[in-house]
Amino acid sequence: MRNFIIFQALTILIVLAGCSEDHKSTSSKLTPVDFSYVQITDSFWSRILTNHVNTTLPVCIDQIENKSGRIRNFENAALGEGEHSGIFYDDSDVYKALEGIAYSLINNPNPDLEKKADEWIDKFTAAQEDDGYINTYYSLTGLDKRWTNMDKHEMYCAGHLIEAAVAYYKATEKKQLLDVSINMVDHIMGQFGPDKRHWVPGHEEIELALVKLYEVTGNSDYLNFAHWLLEERGHGHGTKGEEGEWNTLYYQDSVPVKELSQITGHAVRAMYLFCAMADVETLKENTGYLESLERLWDDVVNKKMYITGGIGSSRQNEGFTEPYDLPNYEAYCETCASVGMVYWNSRMNQLTRDSKYADVMERSLYNGALAGVSLNGDRFFYVNPLASHGDHHRKEWYGTACCPSQISRFIPSIGNYIYGISYDALWINLYIGNNTRIPMQNGELVIKQETNYPWDGEISLTIESLPKGNNLDINLRIPDWCKYYSISVNGDIIREPALNKGYVILNRNWRNNDKIYLSLDMPVKVITDIPQVKENIGKKAVQRGPLIYCAEETDNIDFQNIFISDEITFTAYFEPDILNGIALINAQNDANKIKLIPYYAWDNREAGEMKVWIDYEEKKVVPTGLEPVTP
Amino acid sequence: MRNFIIFQALTILIVLAGCSEDHKSTSSKLTPVDFSYVQITDSFWSRILTNHVNTTLPVCIDQIENKSGRIRNFENAALGEGEHSGIFYDDSDVYKALEGIAYSLINNPNPDLEKKADEWIDKFTAAQEDDGYINTYYSLTGLDKRWTNMDKHEMYCAGHLIEAAVAYYKATEKKQLLDVSINMVDHIMGQFGPDKRHWVPGHEEIELALVKLYEVTGNSDYLNFAHWLLEERGHGHGTKGEEGEWNTLYYQDSVPVKELSQITGHAVRAMYLFCAMADVETLKENTGYLESLERLWDDVVNKKMYITGGIGSSRQNEGFTEPYDLPNYEAYCETCASVGMVYWNSRMNQLTRDSKYADVMERSLYNGALAGVSLNGDRFFYVNPLASHGDHHRKEWYGTACCPSQISRFIPSIGNYIYGISYDALWINLYIGNNTRIPMQNGELVIKQETNYPWDGEISLTIESLPKGNNLDINLRIPDWCKYYSISVNGDIIREPALNKGYVILNRNWRNNDKIYLSLDMPVKVITDIPQVKENIGKKAVQRGPLIYCAEETDNIDFQNIFISDEITFTAYFEPDILNGIALINAQNDANKIKLIPYYAWDNREAGEMKVWIDYEEKKVVPTGLEPVTP
Repeated sequence: MRNFIIFQALTILIVLAGCSEDHKSTSSKLTPVDFSYVQITDSFWSRILTNHVNTTLPVCIDQIENKSGRIRNFENAALGEGEHSGIFYDDSDVYKALEGIAYSLINNPNPDLEKKADEWIDKFTAAQEDDGYINTYYSLTGLDKRWTNMDKHEMYCAGHLIEAAVAYYKATEKKQLLDVSINMVDHIMGQFGPDKRHWVPGHEEIELALVKLYEVTGNSDYLNFAHWLLEERGHGHGTKGEEGEWNTLYYQDSVPVKELSQITGHAVRAMYLFCAMADVETLKENTGYLESLERLWDDVVNKKMYITGGIGSSRQNEGFTEPYDLPNYEAYCETCASVGMVYWNSRMNQLTRDSKYADVMERSLYNGALAGVSLNGDRFFYVNPLASHGDHHRKEWYGTACCPSQISRFIPSIGNYIYGISYDALWINLYIGNNTRIPMQNGELVIKQETNYPWDGEISLTIESLPKGNNLDINLRIPDWCKYYSISVNGDIIREPALNKGYVILNRNWRNNDKIYLSLDMPVKVITDIPQVKENIGKKAVQRGPLIYCAEETDNIDFQNIFISDEITFTAYFEPDILNGIALINAQNDANKIKLIPYYAWDNREAGEMKVWIDYEEKKVVPTGLEPVTP
Repeated sequence: MRNFIIFQALTILIVLAGCSEDHKSTSSKLTPVDFSYVQITDSFWSRILTNHVNTTLPVCIDQIENKSGRIRNFENAALGEGEHSGIFYDDSDVYKALEGIAYSLINNPNPDLEKKADEWIDKFTAAQEDDGYINTYYSLTGLDKRWTNMDKHEMYCAGHLIEAAVAYYKATEKKQLLDVSINMVDHIMGQFGPDKRHWVPGHEEIELALVKLYEVTGNSDYLNFAHWLLEERGHGHGTKGEEGEWNTLYYQDSVPVKELSQITGHAVRAMYLFCAMADVETLKENTGYLESLERLWDDVVNKKMYITGGIGSSRQNEGFTEPYDLPNYEAYCETCASVGMVYWNSRMNQLTRDSKYADVMERSLYNGALAGVSLNGDRFFYVNPLASHGDHHRKEWYGTACCPSQISRFIPSIGNYIYGISYDALWINLYIGNNTRIPMQNGELVIKQETNYPWDGEISLTIESLPKGNNLDINLRIPDWCKYYSISVNGDIIREPALNKGYVILNRNWRNNDKIYLSLDMPVKVITDIPQVKENIGKKAVQRGPLIYCAEETDNIDFQNIFISDEITFTAYFEPDILNGIALINAQNDANKIKLIPYYAWDNREAGEMKVWIDYEEKKVVPTGLEPVTP
C-alpha cells in the first residue's frame, strides 16, 4: 500500500483563501462549492433526494446483489473460479451505485448502508489481482486477453472505481477503496504512458476520474497521466485488436482533441471526454482545450441538442448523426448523456464564468436528466424520446444499466451545481432552497436560499454570516429563459444592476443578515425551433421557467388534434396532488383546451401518447388584396 | 323650436332590463357603460384628467377666444358682417372644445366653465341662419355658395355641433344647443335625402353624430338619414363643384360602403365613416356593414397600422398609401386618427363581443392617442412619428386644430371604454381604477376596480353590490399582449377559466363584495415586425403591457449605436419623479445599456432624437461546418 497525502476539499479552500502558490490568486475560474456543504431544504429537491435514499439506492443494491450477477462477478474473481455473468462493463454499475451510496452518506449518515458499502469494498479488494489490475470480466475470462481491445472498458471501469473511491473517502474518511483504485492506477501507469504503450480508452471516463484522484491525493502524476491519455487521441493508436474495426469518429479519436470542432459518435463518451478536457485545462491552463471545447459547445448546443438538453439522437451509435437531425419519436437521448451535459456544462461555467453554460446545465438537469427516473425513484429511462406512441416506459433495470446507476450517483450530488466561488465572488447558478456553510479562511460564509423554484421565480437569499474582512461580490445568474426580472437588497430595488455574462453583479459591503430578493418573471413561453430542424416545422413547444412541458394522452382526450395557436393563453397553477406536485399548465383558446405537464414527470401515470412538440396553427389572415393604392 | 322626447341614457337601461320591444332581449351586442357612471380613481388617469380640466381646456378656450378668430367668426356671422378668419372648417374646433367642456362638467361640475359654455352657445344660436343653417364660413363669405362643394365640411361641422349639443345636454340637461343642432339637421334633411338632392359628405362625421342625436331624441329619422348618407357613397355623386377633381379613394367614395375591403385615402375620415357604419349596423342590423367592417379591420390592422396603433402613414393625403408602407421618421399618424381608432374599435367590440377589437383600442389609446398631448396637457402633436431627429415637437395650437380639440373632447370621455354591458354579462375591457355605479332595473350594479395599470398587471375587482335577481357573468378581457395570467375569486384560483374570444367568462351566483383578482403577467416583450414592413427589417421594438416604449437621446448618450440583442435582459421599475411617473425600462447586456420610456411620454424633456424601432444585433453563431458525419 502506498502512502499519499490527503488534501480533502483542498481546492476550495485554496481558491477562497486567495493565497495558494499553485493557483493564481486572481484566477478567473470558479470552484464549485461541494454539495457536502450544502443542505437542500426545498420541497422539490428534498422529495427527490428522499426517494433516492429510500427507493433508488435499495433498487440498485437489490439489482446488483440479487437480480443480476454483478456482485457475484467480484466474488468469483476473488475466488479465481466461476463464470463472468452479464457484460464486460458491468463492474462500473456497482462502482456507480457505491458512489451514489457515498454521496448519500455525506448528508444522510446511515450505518446499515455504510456496512453494505464496506461489504462491497471488501469484495472489490479481494477481487483485485496481485498486480493491482481489477476487472472481473478479464479475471474470469482470461487475463491473457486484457489490454488488447481498447473498447473493452477496462479503463472506463477503473475510472468509475476511482470516482467511487474518492466519494467514499470523502464521506467516511475510509481509505480502503482509495488504495484499491490507486493500485489499479499504478498498474495502468506501469503499462501505459510516454515511452510505454499507447492506449486510447474506447469509453472515456478514467481521465476525469484521475483528476479527482489528483485533487484528493495531491499527486500530480495522476493529473499528468489524464492529460497524456487525452493527448493520445487522434494519432491512429486506437484498436480493437482482432475484434473488428476502430471507428475513429465513434470514439472521438479522429483528430487530436485540441483540434476537435464537431461532436461525433457516442454521446456519453464525448461528454466524459469534454469533462476531462475542461478539468485538465482548469488545472494546467493553456492546454489549448478551451478553444476546442468552445467550438464543440457551439456545435452541440446550436445543432445537436434537443430542447430538453438531451443529446445523441441515434440509437444505432447511441450518439450523433448529422446536424439538426433531431427526431422526436426516435430520439435516443440517453439519460447518461443528459447527466453528462450537466457535468460538462458545469465545468465550462467554472472555466469561463459564463452563465450560458449554466443555462444549458439547468436545461439538461431539469428535463433530460430528471426524466431518467420515475417520480418514486424506482424505475429508469435509458432512452428519452420527446414523443411516444404510448409504448415507451421506464424499467426497473437494464442489461446495460449505466443509466440507473448514473441516476443513483447523480441525484445525491445535486448540491454541487448550485454555487461557485472565486477569489472575488460567490456565484449562484441554480435556484434551489438550501442552507449552506462554506468554510473559508476567516470563518464561514453562511447562506440561506429560499424558493419554490421551479414552480415560481421568487428567490430570497439571506447572507446569514460572512467571514471577517471578506467582501465578495454576490453574482446571481439570470437564466436564459428569463428576460425580465427585478432584484432588491434589504428592500431597495437595484435599479440598474451591473451585468456580466448573464450574471447580475451585486457589489457592496455585505453585512450579516443582508437579504437579497430576486424575482424572475416566469411566464409560459411558446418556443419555435430553428427552421433547420425539419421535424419541428409547424410545431411549437411550451416552456415555463427551466421546465419543458409536454402533453400526455391521459390529460388530453383528443390528443391527436391538440394544437397551439397565437390566440392561446395560459394559466399555470400548482397542483399538489398530481405527479408529486407540479405546476400544471392550461393552454386554451375558444375551441381548444390543452393540459401540459413538465416533461420530467411524463410516463408516471397510465400509459398513453406523449409529445413535447405540438402542432401549431397559424393565425388565418383574411386576404384583402395587395394592390397599391394611389389616393 | 321642436318638441322631442328625451331618452337620456335609454339604450343602457333597455339592454340591461332585457325587456325592450325595440331590442332583442338576447342581443349579442354590448352597450358601453357611459363614462358619466364611471368615476376614475387611479393615479395614471386621474392625473391626466386633472391636467385636462386645469390646462388643456383653458388652453383651448384661450386659443378659440383670444389667439384665433374662431369665436369672432360666430360673432360676425350673428351680426351678418365682418370677415371670416381662418379656415372653412374652424367652427368644428369650437364645437369639439365645447364637447370637451361638457364631458368635463359631468364628472367635475364647474360653474365658471358652464357659464363660458353658455356664452358660446348663445353665440352659436345667434349665428344660426333663419333656415337653420349654421356655418360661419359660408355665412361670412356668401351663403349662395353653400352646398356646392362636398369637401367644404358643412356637414362635418354640423356633426361636431350635434356631438357637442348631445354632450352638453347630458351634462346640464340644457336643450338650447340641441335645438340649434336639430334646426341644422332639419335644414339639411330638407335639402338632401331620398327624392331630394344627393350628397356625399367629403369629411365623414355627421353620420355618427346623427346616431347620437337619434339616441338622445328617439327620432329615428336621424338614424335613417345617417344610413342614407352612408349609402350615398360609391355611386358617383361626389363633387367639389367647380373647385377641382373629386378623388373617390381619398373620400372613401369609390364603391358602396358595404363593398369596401381596403381602407383608402384620408385616415380620420375613414375612421368616422367606419364608426357610423358600426353604429347603424348596431341599431338596424343586417345592413351588410359588419362583413365590410371586418374586411376593413383586417386590412388596417394587418397591413396599415403602426405598432403604436397609429394609422395613416402619408403626409400627402393625411392617410394611406400601399400596404406595409409604414415609415418611422415620416410617419404621419395623426392624433385624430388614433382617437378614431379608439372610437371605431370600441364600436366593433360592442358589435361582436370580440376582444381583438378592444386590444387594438387599447393599443391606439395608450400609444398613438395619448402621445398627442404633452404630460402637462398644454401642447399637442398633430403628427406622431415613430422616430425623430430631434426636430419634432408638440405645439400650443395649429392652424388646423382638429387634434388639440380632439384631445380636449376625447380625454374626459375615457370612462366610456372601460365597461360594456349585455343582457347576460358585464364586460371589462380596460383596466383602470374606478368606482362605477350602473343603474339597472332592480337596483344598481356597483363595481370597484383597483389597479396600478399600466404599470403592473395586478387588478382587483370588487362587486360591491348587485341588483336583485340579477346574475350577470363577469367577463374579463385578457389583453393580447398577455399570454399568461391567473384569476381568483374570493381567494380561490380559477383553474380552468372558460374563454371566449379573448374574454375569461366568470359565471357564478355573485354576492355583494365578491372579490375578483386578476394577475396579468406583464413582462417586457421584444417585438419583431412582420417582414413585409421593409423599414423595420433588422429592428425590434419593446413593449410592456399595453405600452410601446421608445428610446430618447436624453437617456441614451450613444443614441446612434444602441441595439437590442437576444442576450439583453430587462428590468422595469417605477420612477415617480420622471415624466410624471413612469415604469422606466433598463435593457442591458454586458456591453450595452439602454433606457426606454413609454412612447406616449416622449418629447416632454429636452429636445433630442427618438426611436421606437431599435437596431437588432443577431446572435453570432460560430460556424463549425455542416458536413454530415457517419460514425
